[in-house]
Amino acid sequence: MPYRAPVTEIEFVLTHVVGMDRVAETELFAEASSETVHAILSEAGKMCEEVLSPLQRVGDLQPAVLENGVVRASPGFGDGYKAIAEGGYIAISASPEFGGLGLPQTLATAVNEMIGSACLSLQLNPLMTQGQIEALEHHASDEIKALYLPKLVSGEWCGTMNLTEPQAGSDVGALSSKAQDNADGTYAISGQKIYISWGDNDFARNICHLVLARLPDGPAGTKGISLFLVPKFLPDAQGNAGVANSLKVVSLEHKLGLHGSPTCVMQYDGATGWMIGEPHKGMAAMFTMMNNARLGVGVQGLSAAEGAYQHALGFAMERKQGRSAVAGGTGTILDHADVRRMLAGMKAQVFAARAIALDLAVSIDLARALDDPAMKARAAFLTPICKAYGTETGIAVSNEGIQVHGGMGFVEETGAAQFLRDVRVTAIYEGTNGIQAMDLVGRKMMDGGAAANALIDEIEHTALAAKSAPLTQAAEALRHATEQMVSLEMNDRFAGAVPYCMAFATVLGAHYHLRAALAEQDDGPRSRLAQVFVARHLPKVAGWLSEAAHGASDLYALSPDDFAA
Amino acid sequence: MPYRAPVTEIEFVLTHVVGMDRVAETELFAEASSETVHAILSEAGKMCEEVLSPLQRVGDLQPAVLENGVVRASPGFGDGYKAIAEGGYIAISASPEFGGLGLPQTLATAVNEMIGSACLSLQLNPLMTQGQIEALEHHASDEIKALYLPKLVSGEWCGTMNLTEPQAGSDVGALSSKAQDNADGTYAISGQKIYISWGDNDFARNICHLVLARLPDGPAGTKGISLFLVPKFLPDAQGNAGVANSLKVVSLEHKLGLHGSPTCVMQYDGATGWMIGEPHKGMAAMFTMMNNARLGVGVQGLSAAEGAYQHALGFAMERKQGRSAVAGGTGTILDHADVRRMLAGMKAQVFAARAIALDLAVSIDLARALDDPAMKARAAFLTPICKAYGTETGIAVSNEGIQVHGGMGFVEETGAAQFLRDVRVTAIYEGTNGIQAMDLVGRKMMDGGAAANALIDEIEHTALAAKSAPLTQAAEALRHATEQMVSLEMNDRFAGAVPYCMAFATVLGAHYHLRAALAEQDDGPRSRLAQVFVARHLPKVAGWLSEAAHGASDLYALSPDDFAA
Repeated sequence: MPYRAPVTEIEFVLTHVVGMDRVAETELFAEASSETVHAILSEAGKMCEEVLSPLQRVGDLQPAVLENGVVRASPGFGDGYKAIAEGGYIAISASPEFGGLGLPQTLATAVNEMIGSACLSLQLNPLMTQGQIEALEHHASDEIKALYLPKLVSGEWCGTMNLTEPQAGSDVGALSSKAQDNADGTYAISGQKIYISWGDNDFARNICHLVLARLPDGPAGTKGISLFLVPKFLPDAQGNAGVANSLKVVSLEHKLGLHGSPTCVMQYDGATGWMIGEPHKGMAAMFTMMNNARLGVGVQGLSAAEGAYQHALGFAMERKQGRSAVAGGTGTILDHADVRRMLAGMKAQVFAARAIALDLAVSIDLARALDDPAMKARAAFLTPICKAYGTETGIAVSNEGIQVHGGMGFVEETGAAQFLRDVRVTAIYEGTNGIQAMDLVGRKMMDGGAAANALIDEIEHTALAAKSAPLTQAAEALRHATEQMVSLEMNDRFAGAVPYCMAFATVLGAHYHLRAALAEQDDGPRSRLAQVFVARHLPKVAGWLSEAAHGASDLYALSPDDFAA
Repeated sequence: MPYRAPVTEIEFVLTHVVGMDRVAETELFAEASSETVHAILSEAGKMCEEVLSPLQRVGDLQPAVLENGVVRASPGFGDGYKAIAEGGYIAISASPEFGGLGLPQTLATAVNEMIGSACLSLQLNPLMTQGQIEALEHHASDEIKALYLPKLVSGEWCGTMNLTEPQAGSDVGALSSKAQDNADGTYAISGQKIYISWGDNDFARNICHLVLARLPDGPAGTKGISLFLVPKFLPDAQGNAGVANSLKVVSLEHKLGLHGSPTCVMQYDGATGWMIGEPHKGMAAMFTMMNNARLGVGVQGLSAAEGAYQHALGFAMERKQGRSAVAGGTGTILDHADVRRMLAGMKAQVFAARAIALDLAVSIDLARALDDPAMKARAAFLTPICKAYGTETGIAVSNEGIQVHGGMGFVEETGAAQFLRDVRVTAIYEGTNGIQAMDLVGRKMMDGGAAANALIDEIEHTALAAKSAPLTQAAEALRHATEQMVSLEMNDRFAGAVPYCMAFATVLGAHYHLRAALAEQDDGPRSRLAQVFVARHLPKVAGWLSEAAHGASDLYALSPDDFAA
């Protein structure tokens, strides 16, 4: 099914669910009027439907390849990238000083969603650049900014992030890449990095790698890591891509999905780099990029979910099987209760994932525009929830989309399976969902649960306004579980982190659904979809919360031999 | 990780959880002593580890291909098949009259599990033949039996089942293949069939297709369908494969997984066939095969889950990341609470799926040996639960196995992703899991809930013996939901069928876990794993049951336009 950009739906969520108007009321984002938002979303949506959507299957069937040390992108990806760059969509939220539009992250997030639904493997490319732009804006020297940012913003150059090494995945502190001071303002970077998304391509003039490495005097662990900008081609005197740097793509991974996105093993052999931020404080700088990227990856999950939902609904509305269960039905499988259960559940989850992502983005914008610590804490708390729930929703909805297709879902020609294959990695990269959940119950609860409780207050406010007993009960249960969580030892929290995170997201989902319902005059389609979510998804919360505060002792009662028995 | 056949585990479940001794006590299965069971499982396990397991990746990387109208199987599959056939594993439960071992279905089920873990795509081939043997034993004429059964039992010939047509999937009654009486005891079969697993291969002398088609006087719908045996090569006077029949493989599907199993589009052009059973009563005969196959496919899910669990555990026990969360840990990621949560949950679900499958198989054997209507009803009720839960567990555990691998789970070389790709179709074929669940709450509750309540009685007995308040509560909730379900209109039941089915299976899972725990002297590893299941999986039941009895009205309140909005 061809992708249809859900512009009206996104605008509804922005206006009636996450309060985008508060962003437009700030001085910083005064230009983000609803007219501007509408114009940009409409234009971007059109590009997604017409230019990018046809690339989705192409990337899958004709993956990027490594030829003579250079990555050749899938056919048409160069043109698709050009459309994204020329539309200004790489740099919606980048500073106008360097050519960005200076508009809210919220708008960038909405556009990223549509680009990701249209072609997820290509979308990952500008997503990486967006993170790099933000990291450089915050941590780079003025010289570096002046040289690199205009080219990244325009899309002439691309950005990547290089963290992982074979022995250092979730445990970034175990990395062994080295940086040597060249005593001329540059450093010589050596080491091997793996899982580098879009580590090279043939449509950008230069690829700028942000690389984590250790200085000779860097202590072990994460506190001895510094961040370096290492371009594929060294800028010449005019700031253009000049001679080749000492780095190369060694190989590409053969992956379950996202075939259009080359995942590179990168080798740095004394490559010239510039330090970003302070020595040994690379992780802090990298986290600027990673927080952005976590929102971005949560949105990738949403993108796949929306795409898979549209695909499955399109199939269902054409497929005739069995007798209609209802009078005056469509004559298609949409008449069957179980198919409706699947599709309504998918749509309801997509709505929840989108609302969480856009609410997070609004918090990021407000925190920045108002320099508001409470809003910062809200954004920090929502970040792991958005990443984990968005990507789990991407997987769950794509998986259900296959099921709606029946046998045709298992046949690749249909395209239904690709959504699942592509989205599967989003629960892993930018910090696995386990890491996200541990961040939520660990670092994000160092405030004793204040940020959590502030969100639960908002939820209870909605429950009251909507007179929803199920949401009231769920919010109370969530508050109780939060109290328990805060009182637990850290490792006991970790044993229940994932179910706690899923429970929190699902309660939030009901809260956004009911907010949407409240925005309707009478009981309309928003209320009806909200009721589906409340009746069929919210009841999962009790089970998750029961596991959340269970502690870790039962898990450690099992010995390695017990596991292997 | 190389596959290790869980012979000891299977024997424990047979002995202490599902009461296999009751089968061996019957006259029919007197030879199925625990010594015989041990000998067969051990030999089969050795073959799976040594001969079949290496074929798993081969089939994925070098799929079956169609060359000049003939399917060439993946390299080594012919030898693997020969090992299965020569071991007698195709016909463990087939009648000794035709060369079968005449042993219980329970034993065949346990062996099928191991073969499926070792190489799922190859296992599907003898699984189809097993179903055909059973269908012919029950419905074919003596002449057909004498001619075909010895060759199917020995594995010299293979069997397939041909139901689906492009416009007739879940709605079998919509098929349009035709059968014309040749007035010589044979029929001319014409039509196209799709999704024919192992529709051809290059290692069997003949392929025997069971084909559903309609006689000229067959009424529309399922009541006008007849069943025909249509061999690839017509048997000659000596009963050997003779001249080619008028049928061919048109093409193979390009699938998400199970690449080693050729999924064929078959064309019949007046092919010669023999009727099996009575005119217009083909569906009844096919259901013999399908019930067998539903157990078999549930077991395929279990196979993948066991394989994925072993694979993930092997990875976790070698992978070092982060600081150990516990004193005296292994130094691997198994020390981390969230990894333990995943692996313990996977193992606990595998146990539940295996116990359900073997309990169902025991019921089938006892129903047959004792001709006991209550046991027949028990088997009939457990069949859709086994199929749906086994395959959902296969998907869930394979998916979690990818997550345990982190980034390496997304890279195909690891093999983790293949389990998910391969197993995904099991929730679709042999009746989608939605169809299974509707069978459970529809046809299998025509007894007013008697079969359901008899099982709930057993569960409550276990809860009492184990003094388990959570299981007692879950059983009560299940009984209440069953009462509600029985009182609902059929389409309202269908709207909650899948959650009801998942809830029933999960309560059964806890029941088997606690039975296993009761078989231990003190609190040992069985009790510890049972506690994990009770604390972390059983709590999901309340949420499912809340959805189960919710009815369909909320789903039909959404218009097609609402879905597309």
